[in-house]
Amino acid sequence: MRSPMRFFSDNAATVCPQVMDALARANRVDTAYDGDALSQSLDRAFSELFAREVAVVWTSTGTSANALALALLCPPFGAILCHDEAHVMMDECGAVEFYTGGARLMGCVGEGAKLTPDILAARIAAIRPDVHRMQPRAVTIANATEYGLAYAPAEVAAIGAFCKERGLGLHMDGARFANAVAFLGCSPADVTWRAGVDALSFGFTKNGAMNAEALVLFDPALADEARIRRKRAGHLLSKGRFIAAQLLAMIEDGLWLAHASAANDAARIIAAAAGDRLMHEVEANELFIRLTAAEAARLRAGGFDFYDWGEGAARLVTSWNHAVSDVEPLAAALASL
Amino acid sequence: MRSPMRFFSDNAATVCPQVMDALARANRVDTAYDGDALSQSLDRAFSELFAREVAVVWTSTGTSANALALALLCPPFGAILCHDEAHVMMDECGAVEFYTGGARLMGCVGEGAKLTPDILAARIAAIRPDVHRMQPRAVTIANATEYGLAYAPAEVAAIGAFCKERGLGLHMDGARFANAVAFLGCSPADVTWRAGVDALSFGFTKNGAMNAEALVLFDPALADEARIRRKRAGHLLSKGRFIAAQLLAMIEDGLWLAHASAANDAARIIAAAAGDRLMHEVEANELFIRLTAAEAARLRAGGFDFYDWGEGAARLVTSWNHAVSDVEPLAAALASL
Amino acid sequence: MRSPMRFFSDNAATVCPQVMDALARANRVDTAYDGDALSQSLDRAFSELFAREVAVVWTSTGTSANALALALLCPPFGAILCHDEAHVMMDECGAVEFYTGGARLMGCVGEGAKLTPDILAARIAAIRPDVHRMQPRAVTIANATEYGLAYAPAEVAAIGAFCKERGLGLHMDGARFANAVAFLGCSPADVTWRAGVDALSFGFTKNGAMNAEALVLFDPALADEARIRRKRAGHLLSKGRFIAAQLLAMIEDGLWLAHASAANDAARIIAAAAGDRLMHEVEANELFIRLTAAEAARLRAGGFDFYDWGEGAARLVTSWNHAVSDVEPLAAALASL
Amino acid sequence: MRSPMRFFSDNAATVCPQVMDALARANRVDTAYDGDALSQSLDRAFSELFAREVAVVWTSTGTSANALALALLCPPFGAILCHDEAHVMMDECGAVEFYTGGARLMGCVGEGAKLTPDILAARIAAIRPDVHRMQPRAVTIANATEYGLAYAPAEVAAIGAFCKERGLGLHMDGARFANAVAFLGCSPADVTWRAGVDALSFGFTKNGAMNAEALVLFDPALADEARIRRKRAGHLLSKGRFIAAQLLAMIEDGLWLAHASAANDAARIIAAAAGDRLMHEVEANELFIRLTAAEAARLRAGGFDFYDWGEGAARLVTSWNHAVSDVEPLAAALASL
Repeated sequence: MRSPMRFFSDNAATVCPQVMDALARANRVDTAYDGDALSQSLDRAFSELFAREVAVVWTSTGTSANALALALLCPPFGAILCHDEAHVMMDECGAVEFYTGGARLMGCVGEGAKLTPDILAARIAAIRPDVHRMQPRAVTIANATEYGLAYAPAEVAAIGAFCKERGLGLHMDGARFANAVAFLGCSPADVTWRAGVDALSFGFTKNGAMNAEALVLFDPALADEARIRRKRAGHLLSKGRFIAAQLLAMIEDGLWLAHASAANDAARIIAAAAGDRLMHEVEANELFIRLTAAEAARLRAGGFDFYDWGEGAARLVTSWNHAVSDVEPLAAALASL
Repeated sequence: MRSPMRFFSDNAATVCPQVMDALARANRVDTAYDGDALSQSLDRAFSELFAREVAVVWTSTGTSANALALALLCPPFGAILCHDEAHVMMDECGAVEFYTGGARLMGCVGEGAKLTPDILAARIAAIRPDVHRMQPRAVTIANATEYGLAYAPAEVAAIGAFCKERGLGLHMDGARFANAVAFLGCSPADVTWRAGVDALSFGFTKNGAMNAEALVLFDPALADEARIRRKRAGHLLSKGRFIAAQLLAMIEDGLWLAHASAANDAARIIAAAAGDRLMHEVEANELFIRLTAAEAARLRAGGFDFYDWGEGAARLVTSWNHAVSDVEPLAAALASL
Repeated sequence: MRSPMRFFSDNAATVCPQVMDALARANRVDTAYDGDALSQSLDRAFSELFAREVAVVWTSTGTSANALALALLCPPFGAILCHDEAHVMMDECGAVEFYTGGARLMGCVGEGAKLTPDILAARIAAIRPDVHRMQPRAVTIANATEYGLAYAPAEVAAIGAFCKERGLGLHMDGARFANAVAFLGCSPADVTWRAGVDALSFGFTKNGAMNAEALVLFDPALADEARIRRKRAGHLLSKGRFIAAQLLAMIEDGLWLAHASAANDAARIIAAAAGDRLMHEVEANELFIRLTAAEAARLRAGGFDFYDWGEGAARLVTSWNHAVSDVEPLAAALASL
Repeated sequence: MRSPMRFFSDNAATVCPQVMDALARANRVDTAYDGDALSQSLDRAFSELFAREVAVVWTSTGTSANALALALLCPPFGAILCHDEAHVMMDECGAVEFYTGGARLMGCVGEGAKLTPDILAARIAAIRPDVHRMQPRAVTIANATEYGLAYAPAEVAAIGAFCKERGLGLHMDGARFANAVAFLGCSPADVTWRAGVDALSFGFTKNGAMNAEALVLFDPALADEARIRRKRAGHLLSKGRFIAAQLLAMIEDGLWLAHASAANDAARIIAAAAGDRLMHEVEANELFIRLTAAEAARLRAGGFDFYDWGEGAARLVTSWNHAVSDVEPLAAALASL
C-alpha cells in the first residue's frame, strides 16, 4: 500500500508483503523465546552479511537495541559521547540512563548531527581526568545521522581509530543503516567493524518490518551479557520466532537494501525539487527543508503531511514503498511554491 | 494448527487466525507509536470489559508488564511480597529489580504458589519497622498461579483488604488471567479491582496472540507514568498498532475467554486420566503430575513432549488450540502407564 | 591554625576548635545511628534557625546531600535543570544519576553560574512535551554559585515562583550557603523556603566543620523517605552523634555566620587588590581572576597556592580562619604584579 | 569511658583516645579528598598488615564498604549468595541492590549464620542455568558472623576454592574482622586473600574508631573503579585525612587487635556465666543467650541494657573498652538468675 501524501515518518509505514508472509510461515509450534530454529540461525545469516563472525540479538525496538548496546559498552559511572541532537539524547526518554544504570550522555555540537575525531577530542579535553568528573567510556554515532547524512567508511574509521586510542567503545545507531549503506554503496562490513564499530543497532522496522531490529555485536563475546540484559529488560519475547522471521525475510535476497534504495531514490526526487530549500544534503531518506508557515500550509492544503521542524523548517521522510510516481506530486507541489 | 503431542508451554503455541487477520488489517499507514486509532481505542475497550474506567498500556511481553506495574507500585527502596516460586522471582532475570531501581522481592511460602493474608502478615511481622530493614510496599500474586490454581474473588478480596489496611499496592500477574476467569466463571472485575487489585498484567500471548499483553491500570492516574516508563524501557513500539490490533481482536466477541476455556477443558481431560498423580488441583491449563523417570521416558517414546519438574514430576500445559480430540491420546497414554 | 599562603579550597581547611570540642563532648556512650540525643535535637535547632518547622537529615558530604535531595524531588525518568557548570553536573561523578536512578541533568547557560526564570523557560520551551523527551521535574541552583555570586531573596523567589507554576521541585545547593547569607544580610528563611526552595544542602564542612552537612527539608513530609534513602546509600553513620554534634556546635551562637563573614571579608580584601582582574563580582569567599601564566608563576614563587582556572585565569578561595592579616600578603602581591 | 551496664552494641561505644588524638594531629591544612599524605599512605600500611600488595579505599560506614565491594564483584544482573540473616540482607536497607544497580541477594540457611561450600553448591544447583534465572556471580560471608562465630582460615579457604571453581567473587564483611582474627590467632592474610577472599570490609568503627572503615582490595586492579564508585556514592569526604588518620592510628602498634582481644575477653567472661543459656559458641564479642521475659526484666531492673532477640532470647555485645571488671557485674547477675 502506497502512501503518496504522507511523509511523517518511515516509522509509521506499512509492513512489506515478504515480512507478512514470513510471519505466516513462522506460525507453527516451536520452542519458545529464542530457542526456535529461526532465532538460532540469525548469527549465521548476519555473519554472512557482515563477512565475519558476529552475534545477533533480536529485539523489537531501536531504543532497546541502542540502550542494550550502550549498557554493554559503558559502566554505570561512565559517560557516552554523542551528538547533541542524537536520537538517544533527544527521543528515547532516558533509556540509555536506565539501561546503563546511570551513565551520562554528553552532547557534542557537529554539523548535520555528525561527529569527528576533532570534535570528540575537544569534548574530552575539557574533562579533568579525575574521580570528580564523569569520564567518557563510549561513543555513539548514528548512520545515517538524524539529519539524513551518511558517514562514509573513512569517516567512521577515523572515529574508530580515535576510540581505540582512547579506550572508548564505539556504537552505531543504525535505525537507517540500510539507507546509509544504499547511499554509500559500500559493504556493511566496511562501515562497521572494519571501521572500528563494536556494536550496531541495525534497524528493520522503518524499512518494511513490523517490529524487528538486530543488535549486531562484532565481538561475539558480548553476546551472553546482551542476552541476559535483554531478558532482564523484558525484551525476550515468548514467540521470538516471529521477530527472527522478519529479520531473515529482509536479509534474504537483499530486500533490506532494495527497500532502502527505493526510499533514497524517492527522497532524491523530492530533493531535486526542493533545490535551495535543502538545509542538509539528502543522503538517505530524510529531507529537511526551509518552508515558511504559509508554504507549509499550502502543501498541507494540497493533502501532504509532514512534521514542522522548528521555525520555518520542515522534515519529510520517504519510505521503502514510495515509488517514484508516488512522490512526484509532492515534488511538483514543492517546485511550484 | 493443532499440536497434539506438545505440552511444553502455551508460550510456544501458534497464533490464532483472528489475530493473524487483525495484523493484516492493521497493515495500513497510521500514526506511529501509540498514536494510532487502534491504540487509542484500548482504554475504552478494556473499560467495557472491566465495567469501569481503566487505562491500558500495551506491551509485548509479560515480563515488561509485570516490571512496569511493580515500578509504579513500589519505590526503589521498598520490598515486594510475592510467592517464593513466583514468575517475577524465578523466571524474569531480575526485571523487577531493574525496573524498580533496586526494590527487593521478598518470597513467601504458600501451598500451590498461593498467598493469603495470614502468610503476608506473618512475613511482615518478621520485619522490624525501621530504616535498616527494607519495608514492604507492594504485593504481587499470580492468577492463575504458577501451579495452575485460581484465586477466587473472595480470596483476592481478602488480600486486597489486607493490602489496603497496610498501605501496600496490589498487582496481579495475569499471564494466564483468562484461564483463571474461565475457571472461576466470574467477571473480570470481580477478581481484580472489585477485590482491591491496583494493576493487572493481562496476558494474551499464551492465549493465542503473537506478542501482546495489556497492563491494565485500575487507577487511570497511573497511566502517564506507566507510558513514560514504557518508553524509557524501549517498549513503545513504532508500529504499535500491530500490538493494539491483537488485543482488540481477542477482546472482541470474547475470544480471550473462549480460548482459555478450550485450554482448560483440554487440561481437565488429561487431569481426569492422571488421577492420583496430580500434585495440584487443575484449575487452569497447567498440570503437575507425579511421574517416574521411566514413566516419563515411556510417554516421550510415545511422542509426547513436556517439561520435567524436578525429581519424579512433570509439568504439562495445554494451549488455546487443543481440541478435546487432540489431548485424548495423551490422556490414554497416561491412563495406561 | 592559619594558612596564609594556601587558597586552594575551603574544602581542605582545618576544623574549628568549637567543633573539635564538640566531638570530645560527644564521646560518650549513646544510642547508635541517629537515635542519640544530639541527632534527635537537630530538627528543633534548625527549625529555630529557619523560623519554621523543618526536618534535618545529617550527612557527611555535600555530594550525598545534593543527590539525596534531588532523588526526593525528581523521579528516575525526569530531568533536573541546572547550570552547565553546576557542581552536581561537573564535580560529583554522576551522583545525581546514581541516587535518582537515572534522571538526567540538563545544563543551562547563565552568567556567573546563575539561572533565571527566563533561562529556565527557554530551556523548557525546547523540550517537546511527550514521552519521547525527558521532562523536567526539578531545578537546582547553588547559593553561593560556583562563581561566588549570591542569589538575593528576590532572585530565588522569582525562580521559586516559576518552579511552582511549572510543577518543578526546587533544590538549593548551599555548600557555601553561609557565605551567601553573610553577604546578603538576610535571614536564612528569606532566601530559602520563603522564596520557594523545597530542600537545601546546607554546608558546614567548608566552613569549619570536619565532615558534617545538613540536608534541610522545608516539607517535613519528605523526611521519612530521606532517612530511608540515606541509610540505603550507606550514609547513616553508626556514631551519628559525632555528625550532629558538629552541626549543633556551628549553629549555636551563630558560629556558622561568623565564620562565613570572616571568609567573605578576607576575600573582599583580596578582591580590592585584584581590581580589574576580577572576572566575577566577589560576593562570597571565591575569587576568579585574570592571571597570565607568568603572573601565576610569580605568585607561586612567592609561596601562594591556588588553582588555575583554564587559560589565563585562576581561582582563589578564602577560608573561615583567614584573618585580615593573613590575606594581606596575597593582596599586596597581587597589587604589585 | 567504660559502660559497664550497656551491652546494646559496639556500634554505640565511645571512640578511643588514640583515635581522638589522631584527629587532633590531622587538623592541619592539607590536600582535600584523598590527596592528603595520610590517605596516600594507607595502601602501604595495609599492604604491610596483609603481607602483600593491597589497595585500600577508606569510607565512613560498613554499609558503604560492603555495597561498594559487591558492586565491584557482581554485575547488575547477577546474584550474590549470602546467609539469610546476613547484615547485607537484613540491616542495610537495600544498599547492595542500590550500589550494584539491581543485583539480587540470595539467602542461604546455615547454622550460626555460617555458609559452607555444600550449602552454596546446593543453592546453586537449584538455579537453572539460563537467562530466565538470575545467576550467582559473588558470595559474601561475614567474619565474625552475625552470630559471633569465626570462620577459620581452612573454612574460608574451602569457600574460596569453591568460588574460584565456579567463577564467583568472594567478599568478606569484616565489621568485626578484628574480633575474628583475635579469636583465631591467625594472621589477617591467612583468613583473607590466602583463603581466596577478593575484597574485605575491614571494620574499625565498632572497634574504637569514630567513623572509619577500610575496604581492602586484594586485587589492586579494582581500586580505580572502587574510587570512582565511592565518589559517585558521595562517600569521598572533603577532609578525608580525618578518616585516614583513624585507620592509621588503629593499625599502628596493633591497636585494632588489642581492642578486639579485650572485647572478646569480656565476652568470654560473660559466656562462662551464661553456661547453658548460650545459643551459639562465643568466638567474638557477641553473645546470644536464652532468656525468658522475666529474666530479661530482672537483668534490666539491675541496670543492664541489651537487645531482645526474638522470643526468649537476648543479644549482648561487649566493646573494646570493657575491662574484665566492667563485665563482672553482668556475669554475676546472669549466674544468679
